[in-house]
Amino acid sequence: MKRIAIDMDGVIADYLSKQLALFNRDHNENITVEDLKGKKLIELRPHLKDEIMNYLKEPSFFRDLEVMKDSQEVIKELSEHYEIFITTAAMEFPTSFTAKYEWLREHFSFLNDMNFVFCGDKSIINADYLIDDNVRHFKRFSGQGILFTSPHNVYETGYVRVNNWQEVRDYFLK
Amino acid sequence: MKRIAIDMDGVIADYLSKQLALFNRDHNENITVEDLKGKKLIELRPHLKDEIMNYLKEPSFFRDLEVMKDSQEVIKELSEHYEIFITTAAMEFPTSFTAKYEWLREHFSFLNDMNFVFCGDKSIINADYLIDDNVRHFKRFSGQGILFTSPHNVYETGYVRVNNWQEVRDYFLK
Repeated sequence: MKRIAIDMDGVIADYLSKQLALFNRDHNENITVEDLKGKKLIELRPHLKDEIMNYLKEPSFFRDLEVMKDSQEVIKELSEHYEIFITTAAMEFPTSFTAKYEWLREHFSFLNDMNFVFCGDKSIINADYLIDDNVRHFKRFSGQGILFTSPHNVYETGYVRVNNWQEVRDYFLK
Repeated sequence: MKRIAIDMDGVIADYLSKQLALFNRDHNENITVEDLKGKKLIELRPHLKDEIMNYLKEPSFFRDLEVMKDSQEVIKELSEHYEIFITTAAMEFPTSFTAKYEWLREHFSFLNDMNFVFCGDKSIINADYLIDDNVRHFKRFSGQGILFTSPHNVYETGYVRVNNWQEVRDYFLK
């Protein structure tokens, strides 16, 4: 059975909507997802980098994120044909471990928690495929990287790209 | 550069001494490491399994464990010749994430925390070597398993075995 490793933030968990909402509220701004094409919020507002990162360091930030559209249904279907691992770069936000674990248990309860991986450098992941929104994780990944579209990565080229979970489904099951 | 993945509990962190001390205190027993040859404490006292496991589920249990003799010095030396990752089956004790992370930061501060991996099923680990005290992790591991001696595994045969960190040093650097 081939194995698919799946990133959390920006792929199954919508951190961006919450980050933007908090930022706009606290700074009286109206930045939209459109404004973030090709960049992350910290690149758009570099002088506020610390404040932006602090949202993500808040222990409960990741606990109530929205689930990305169709990800539950498609991953459930994929899990009948592939071994599924959730591989998240949690070491960047060590305060988030518990929230991320609880979120996965709540929204992806059909997965075995022995298949959750909290890591940093994803070159440690032994899988046939890695679905991720950050191209840096593909550099030393031994399998096939699949770039999940997120505003910040829309101008990246040279990668297999999927724009949503229906396209993931088509890639693996068609 | 070849990569060595290293388990925490029973390999760099001495959970057994603390577990035994707590158990002996609470149950007025005098079980020694000698009594645990070939078995774990839950196999020696199966009717107390829940209580024994509860020690490990206590969020701070892993925070103040003793460092296994010579592990710091040898890993520091190995890190000059190999890529080192710490790979711990933390999903078995999700309450332990923070304590484990902080313990690693305290005692192995010379390692990059991007090389810490909290996982369950270690077949996800992409490394050339895995030093571990549980043979079950070698079953589907793609590299070379190296069994680190612990009382519970002394009767396991058919594995490359190291009895202490000086033997790890000899294996990799001689």
